Amino acid sequence: MKEVGFIGLGSMGVPMVQNLLKEGFRVKVYNRTPEKASGLVEAGAQQVYHPSEAAAAGGIVITMVSNDQALQEVTHAFADQLGAGGVHLSMSTVSPETSRQLALYHQERGSEYVASPVFGRPEAAAAQKLFILSSGPREAKERVQPLQEALGQRVFDISEEPGGANVIKLGGNFMIMAAMEAMAEAFNLAEKSGIDRNLAAEVYASTLFNCTVYQGYGKMIAGKAFEPAGFQLGLGLKDCNLVLQEANSLQTPMPLASLLHDRLLASAAKGRAQQDWSALARIALEEAGLE
Amino acid sequence: MKEVGFIGLGSMGVPMVQNLLKEGFRVKVYNRTPEKASGLVEAGAQQVYHPSEAAAAGGIVITMVSNDQALQEVTHAFADQLGAGGVHLSMSTVSPETSRQLALYHQERGSEYVASPVFGRPEAAAAQKLFILSSGPREAKERVQPLQEALGQRVFDISEEPGGANVIKLGGNFMIMAAMEAMAEAFNLAEKSGIDRNLAAEVYASTLFNCTVYQGYGKMIAGKAFEPAGFQLGLGLKDCNLVLQEANSLQTPMPLASLLHDRLLASAAKGRAQQDWSALARIALEEAGLE
Repeated sequence: MKEVGFIGLGSMGVPMVQNLLKEGFRVKVYNRTPEKASGLVEAGAQQVYHPSEAAAAGGIVITMVSNDQALQEVTHAFADQLGAGGVHLSMSTVSPETSRQLALYHQERGSEYVASPVFGRPEAAAAQKLFILSSGPREAKERVQPLQEALGQRVFDISEEPGGANVIKLGGNFMIMAAMEAMAEAFNLAEKSGIDRNLAAEVYASTLFNCTVYQGYGKMIAGKAFEPAGFQLGLGLKDCNLVLQEANSLQTPMPLASLLHDRLLASAAKGRAQQDWSALARIALEEAGLE
Repeated sequence: MKEVGFIGLGSMGVPMVQNLLKEGFRVKVYNRTPEKASGLVEAGAQQVYHPSEAAAAGGIVITMVSNDQALQEVTHAFADQLGAGGVHLSMSTVSPETSRQLALYHQERGSEYVASPVFGRPEAAAAQKLFILSSGPREAKERVQPLQEALGQRVFDISEEPGGANVIKLGGNFMIMAAMEAMAEAFNLAEKSGIDRNLAAEVYASTLFNCTVYQGYGKMIAGKAFEPAGFQLGLGLKDCNLVLQEANSLQTPMPLASLLHDRLLASAAKGRAQQDWSALARIALEEAGLE
């Protein structure tokens, strides 16, 4: 049975559904703003107008929505219809705690929850190049794997515990923010020494740090260009809060995450929540008298 | 004229001289411990027994020694012989301040100083894959470029100011240490969540951070294996001090560098200066009750 429901047709959801259709899945799509589905309907998707209609009893529903609250709302709207034997493949970036709560919510209905956040932007989604994390009960993970493989280039089986994949996703976002702060400080030191900061960025991104995080954000931080926002600073702050919340409940001191939190909080206080999250570099720029 | 002097036959110097010989240069080699030269003599190098004998009047001398003091000592021993029109290609990792002082020292003798630290370990040196930074007077940089090209895969022209290349090198080491602390904290969070920390390292190193810094040090930090030392923590602490010294004199606040300094200092206090610098991760491990 190659049928699946898909809820959430944002910049990630749309190319993901296109790939599912291309790989031969029949897809029922739902979005709060129904207009977003029009291109997908032309490509063969069946549009539905309530989340519950995306769920077939005992089937699979994929969700890709914007935050924890939206995920909780749609899950409450389709979980009864999904019912016993169903699987919810939850691909949004949400907190480990939300995943744990929703896993219990499904368990009470005989269905299962697989947390499956991704690394990759919309371009990667379109190219089936997402990296996909997966945590939840073993059989449920096996059952959704063909869907994950249709959407990405590699699937990582993280844990049975439902929040595991979310912890790894949050840890990745923390590591990106740490790299951005490191670049901010190093480029400032170069500029204050009379070196072209764009050259400094190029040197690092083509030698020690020849990977996309340093290449992409390095250009923005060196060029002091933080708009348009690929990923908003306010969302980075939210993720940093989730990291520190997990760190607190697990008794794991993370002084670097605490430092980043202060940088992001100051950025939000200065009205930069809608800028790209690399704008956290502006605090270091201001402190060095470079802005 | 393809003749050059080379001072400092350590783990980097030996493969570098081999490559110069391979590329057709005649090389006079000097090392404080003369035994280190024996293999190179067999390969065609001419051994000398005082630094000044490595220098031809108006020629080029390359130095690759272990620290600032060693560099100052050998420079004082050969600079008079090198004399007017000579160039000192200084490839050791030293402070920007040492480069500035030695540039003046050479200037007083009519010779020139090019600071040219490298990114890359001995394996990279052997494979002619070093990344080479270059700062100093334009004509001197042009004159030494054939030598740099014989030693590495790419040369970056950083600045005319003699300390510029050293600032970029120190900034790179700072960014590596920042990446190590970020990994330490993220892997601890994963482990405390019940996730295999080696799996966490593999996920990050094959997705967002697929570059050698994260791949190599990620394995060590995930595996909690900090010996043998590729680069000693005590040297990392020295470089971090140099970063903060430059940051101080240039009025560039670097809170992340300050945090790393405290981690390294605590590591040294605990007797870990001879371990690999990735052992700075042990502080976070201890704080999380994981060691």
